[in-house]
Amino acid sequence: MPTVRKTAEVEAKTVGPEAPGVTMRVLIGPEQGAPNFVMRRFEVAEGGSTPFHAHPWEHEVYVVSGTGAVAGENSRQALEGGDSVFVPGGEKHNFVNMGKQPFVFLCVIPGEQSCKRG
Amino acid sequence: MPTVRKTAEVEAKTVGPEAPGVTMRVLIGPEQGAPNFVMRRFEVAEGGSTPFHAHPWEHEVYVVSGTGAVAGENSRQALEGGDSVFVPGGEKHNFVNMGKQPFVFLCVIPGEQSCKRG
Repeated sequence: MPTVRKTAEVEAKTVGPEAPGVTMRVLIGPEQGAPNFVMRRFEVAEGGSTPFHAHPWEHEVYVVSGTGAVAGENSRQALEGGDSVFVPGGEKHNFVNMGKQPFVFLCVIPGEQSCKRG
Repeated sequence: MPTVRKTAEVEAKTVGPEAPGVTMRVLIGPEQGAPNFVMRRFEVAEGGSTPFHAHPWEHEVYVVSGTGAVAGENSRQALEGGDSVFVPGGEKHNFVNMGKQPFVFLCVIPGEQSCKRG
């Protein structure tokens, strides 16, 4: 039977001091039996941002609500609900809330045991 | 630089006669350079549904808006915005619009060249 979960049923965790105002929920991952990739849901509070960093694996992002931006090494692009973002592995990036409301997005990454995680 | 696309900029394709009222957009896939998995966005019109079928690979789904249901071999679960659904590989399933508004969801699958596609 498919596993259905409401966002509010999933534990929200703070990401750490390098990600002020950011909480993350792992919606679908190894605990749900997902063999390949992990779907996370981020909420970034007003004034918050994710760390400007790089890692070998890619991000596939979909903006659910709010307004924000994605920064790259030499770029900054505005984001709103319905936008998708592909961040290739190895590129520096971060996500920033540019509005008054929470900036909410999904971010799918390869699992640790599968896909090509760099 | 991250690739940003608005949903409306992405071509919407009908899925076929087995999926009445369903259009699909490939938001992030091989054309964007995605090496491992593919993010698609489905819109199911009033009265529409995806085919009841099974395949070796999994689905990771997030409901964006509307009301619908996911059916399994012996189950039927209601869905609304903010719900996530994991459909394991090999299980029969389909998605049905149960409301008057479009039923919109993301569905992430393994790419053909990577991950473990059954």
